[in-house]
Amino acid sequence: MVIEGKAAAQDLIDAALQKVPCDLSVENIKYVNVFTGEIYPAVVDVVVDTVVRVRRPDERCALPSHTVFDGKGAYLIPGFIDSHVHVESTMMIPSNLSRAVVPWGTTTIMTDPHEIANVMGIDGVRFMIENSSHSALRQFILAPSCVPSAPGLETGGAIFDAPTVARLLDMERVVGVAELMDYPGVLSGSDRMRSILEEGARRGVFLQGHAPSLSGKELAAYRIAGPVSDHESSSGSEVLEKVRNGFHVDLRGGSIVSTFPDLLSGIRENRWHDMLSFCTDDRIATEIREKGTINDLVQRAVLAGLDPVEAVRIGTFNAAPEYGFTNLGAVAPGYIADFQLVRELDGGMPEAVFIGGKQVAGNGRDIAPDRTDAQHKHANTVHLTECLQEPDFRIPADGETADVAVLVPFLKAPILYNIAQERFPVRDGFVSIEGCSGICYAAVFNRYGNGARTVALTRLETAEGRFAFATTVSHDCHNIALLYNDESYALKAVHTLKESGGGLVLLHEDGMNVLPLPVAGLMSLSPIDELCDQITAIHDAIRALFGDGTNLLFASVFSLPCLPGAVITDLGIVDGATQSFIPVVNEV
Amino acid sequence: MVIEGKAAAQDLIDAALQKVPCDLSVENIKYVNVFTGEIYPAVVDVVVDTVVRVRRPDERCALPSHTVFDGKGAYLIPGFIDSHVHVESTMMIPSNLSRAVVPWGTTTIMTDPHEIANVMGIDGVRFMIENSSHSALRQFILAPSCVPSAPGLETGGAIFDAPTVARLLDMERVVGVAELMDYPGVLSGSDRMRSILEEGARRGVFLQGHAPSLSGKELAAYRIAGPVSDHESSSGSEVLEKVRNGFHVDLRGGSIVSTFPDLLSGIRENRWHDMLSFCTDDRIATEIREKGTINDLVQRAVLAGLDPVEAVRIGTFNAAPEYGFTNLGAVAPGYIADFQLVRELDGGMPEAVFIGGKQVAGNGRDIAPDRTDAQHKHANTVHLTECLQEPDFRIPADGETADVAVLVPFLKAPILYNIAQERFPVRDGFVSIEGCSGICYAAVFNRYGNGARTVALTRLETAEGRFAFATTVSHDCHNIALLYNDESYALKAVHTLKESGGGLVLLHEDGMNVLPLPVAGLMSLSPIDELCDQITAIHDAIRALFGDGTNLLFASVFSLPCLPGAVITDLGIVDGATQSFIPVVNEV
Repeated sequence: MVIEGKAAAQDLIDAALQKVPCDLSVENIKYVNVFTGEIYPAVVDVVVDTVVRVRRPDERCALPSHTVFDGKGAYLIPGFIDSHVHVESTMMIPSNLSRAVVPWGTTTIMTDPHEIANVMGIDGVRFMIENSSHSALRQFILAPSCVPSAPGLETGGAIFDAPTVARLLDMERVVGVAELMDYPGVLSGSDRMRSILEEGARRGVFLQGHAPSLSGKELAAYRIAGPVSDHESSSGSEVLEKVRNGFHVDLRGGSIVSTFPDLLSGIRENRWHDMLSFCTDDRIATEIREKGTINDLVQRAVLAGLDPVEAVRIGTFNAAPEYGFTNLGAVAPGYIADFQLVRELDGGMPEAVFIGGKQVAGNGRDIAPDRTDAQHKHANTVHLTECLQEPDFRIPADGETADVAVLVPFLKAPILYNIAQERFPVRDGFVSIEGCSGICYAAVFNRYGNGARTVALTRLETAEGRFAFATTVSHDCHNIALLYNDESYALKAVHTLKESGGGLVLLHEDGMNVLPLPVAGLMSLSPIDELCDQITAIHDAIRALFGDGTNLLFASVFSLPCLPGAVITDLGIVDGATQSFIPVVNEV
Repeated sequence: MVIEGKAAAQDLIDAALQKVPCDLSVENIKYVNVFTGEIYPAVVDVVVDTVVRVRRPDERCALPSHTVFDGKGAYLIPGFIDSHVHVESTMMIPSNLSRAVVPWGTTTIMTDPHEIANVMGIDGVRFMIENSSHSALRQFILAPSCVPSAPGLETGGAIFDAPTVARLLDMERVVGVAELMDYPGVLSGSDRMRSILEEGARRGVFLQGHAPSLSGKELAAYRIAGPVSDHESSSGSEVLEKVRNGFHVDLRGGSIVSTFPDLLSGIRENRWHDMLSFCTDDRIATEIREKGTINDLVQRAVLAGLDPVEAVRIGTFNAAPEYGFTNLGAVAPGYIADFQLVRELDGGMPEAVFIGGKQVAGNGRDIAPDRTDAQHKHANTVHLTECLQEPDFRIPADGETADVAVLVPFLKAPILYNIAQERFPVRDGFVSIEGCSGICYAAVFNRYGNGARTVALTRLETAEGRFAFATTVSHDCHNIALLYNDESYALKAVHTLKESGGGLVLLHEDGMNVLPLPVAGLMSLSPIDELCDQITAIHDAIRALFGDGTNLLFASVFSLPCLPGAVITDLGIVDGATQSFIPVVNEV
């Protein structure tokens, strides 16, 4: 696959042949060659957005370039490539994400718009394509393959089948099929997975894997089915087994799951590392602002003992052949001119970042031109049944007492729950938790207009006082997930979400914190600094209420039915292990 | 690109999961993992033609495989891939070549049917596709891009334009565009090269380069134009420069040009070798019988100091990503089951060779099943004007003397010629060489029916006596190239070629040697042993007449207009440097 540049091929050839001047020459650099591993002095010549020549400094051009950039002796390396990222998890829209990560040297991201697809379907993917077209950052898109991820167990905003995936694959910059996370369906040959894999195979596009903890015969079977990569390893031995089996492994350092750099332990001593790339998967704005993205993984890899030149190659070139690109990820004739100047090969902030031959950042400052034509058009995606009232947030029951399913956390990160049956009094036709310390409501309300909801209970230690916490960031269908001990607070929190178009709302006796995420209830329209301030404010309030160590998104995964524990969806309580429903109330 | 196996994906998955038994398990092996560089004991499980699992020896399968093969402690490595070969240069048809190279461990070849295309056009390519479909050897085909290679300077049997290349790219097993050897046309954007490159780029297929001695700005310009590989390097520094510029380099060890293993000197110390493969390009049957093909290059690379595991990877896996295959070149789940068992990692004869999960050779013996359905249908491609007579083999001139262009060799390998103007007597309207020691006729007769011919002179030391040597193997158009000192012998030699459908004919006072090459005048129908005997017989006669060191194909390149010296084509004497014609006779 060749990325088409903006210049005519013959113009590039003529410039390489020095018949016409180049637009840019980057001089006075230590050039890191990612094909050979060598470092040597060179000059990089660029025309429009493409490298036309890397020459020796003593080799003068017949015609001087229009612009000369003095590298001041820095290393010139390709731009970093994030080989798997959900933009939605950053809470920024693609055009704002661009301004946030480019100063750190990331110039290309391979994205899976799985989250917005679950909310908005094809329109969501279209938004990501359109909005990312206004970014300096090169953004490629994969067609989400598992929308919804757990059919029958929850109701999301869209259902993707093979024809839908085919429509997406016809769109601009869509280069493959995104993580095939329904691995039981892949292995059993379910209609949906089989037909999507066949569609991808027919087109010969990249098929992205997702095989957490898969090993031995299951891992082999999964590779046979088609997926060629994986980013779910959580240990060095898992990485090694996957590489041995022919998987390209994206070593992940994200905000939700982070076992990096332990992942390196399995393969650091290997002779070759060309089957490895780096990815962030899910990394929130605050972590990006503090540490960057792929540069951070390069840094941690080097600190963990990986040779810096190896780390640079893993962070740059390797993702290009992974995806089948033949002019991305290196600085060489015919390659897209995405590169950075760094003082050391240690993942530090680059002194200059170029994308498509134009400088777009320097020393941490984003200097990409304003793209005033950016479209942020989006609909409010929080659709509730009209007449929600306080009783809708309670658990109806007959008799005087009832046994209720209570979610009890048994693992901290990621939080997994067991179900305990606990007896509660029933008053006026509803379960009463009055006076029950450490118990609150956990609920999921469908936000796609079908009126479905599940209200259950959970064990949760909180500070004193009435509260409600509600979020539209709730994987994978992103219905409204709620934790509360007072139904009037809960109703108000839901109404606030409805008004803001989604986000996170924390209502407590001292007031209300809101993180508005109006795009699909997942992303803010604010640039990174403003967004981080909002995140910090609500996160502080969350910690004050739920305890110091509480993750911002602690309530975003109790509805994720692919987890092995018990979860709540809009359709009921699901036993993740058996993928079946458990009743909320067992009347006594 | 995924090679489609013969089994249904679900059957492979079910076998990997041990729900159904495998067809074959290869046990008791030292498994060489070409992804990690590790060597460890393993068992390889195969279903039909695909690897489903590589497991630890202590990991027993629930269901035993139908067949178990005891590797007796040998190394198991993937089959070798020849990354660029002209089958015609072996003088064998594809099905016979298969039986010749498979016992040496080569299981896949990437072929360019450039020679037969110049003779027979699309029908020639079709013959190669059809005939190779009956071989155990996996044969992929590239669409020849430069037919003819020197338009206007010679007349061949076909002209390929972009629509022709497009038709070829639609055919079975055609996976890219073959060597773009018209690099002046590539750099200047000639209509033919530009449109063919665009056709290839539009389809996203592999574009094979051919850039002998290209360096600096021309090399950069050539890479920009599209070609991603090169196999023409003749020194280590040339290899290094090409890899630095992002070319995948096929290190060549052929019969015509062989600077291997010097090629390694430029990159042996490099950190990575994934941009390298091995190829033979042109290797004749006799050399194949004696040494094999890619195994021979592995052997020479190891003897030259390359680590054996690196050499194995260069000879196997690396060509797969070069061409964009994702299930070829390794022994891993989902990969086509092409592998070999070798006692040492030294390029020696393998103890067993498997292609598509079936053993096809062992200890040098071809044991692939007979493919009695093989079609060898071919037309006689030697078309002469009906009434050739002895005077047609002489040089007409007026007056009493004439200055004649004489080709004088100035370089031995490859033979390059200068032109000397020498004066000769004219008798009865023809130049006379009677009594001129060390002078003979050099001629090219069109064999595609247009009647064009060029008769000139050359300096050539030979044994005593009358002779004529004629061949239809004459690059690139494969007209009839002739050397003779007697026109009656020449006439007889040409008639013999006509009758045999082409080949090599040497007529001398002691008799006649014929190497019949009836398929396109390029390939024999005989299997390798018989063919080698015929080659040896005529080669002995050639050496007796022209001197001990004479190459079998010494007369096959004096008509090759892409060489920098003077050459003869059916249209006249061509000055290769200026690509213009020189008159044969300058009348005094």
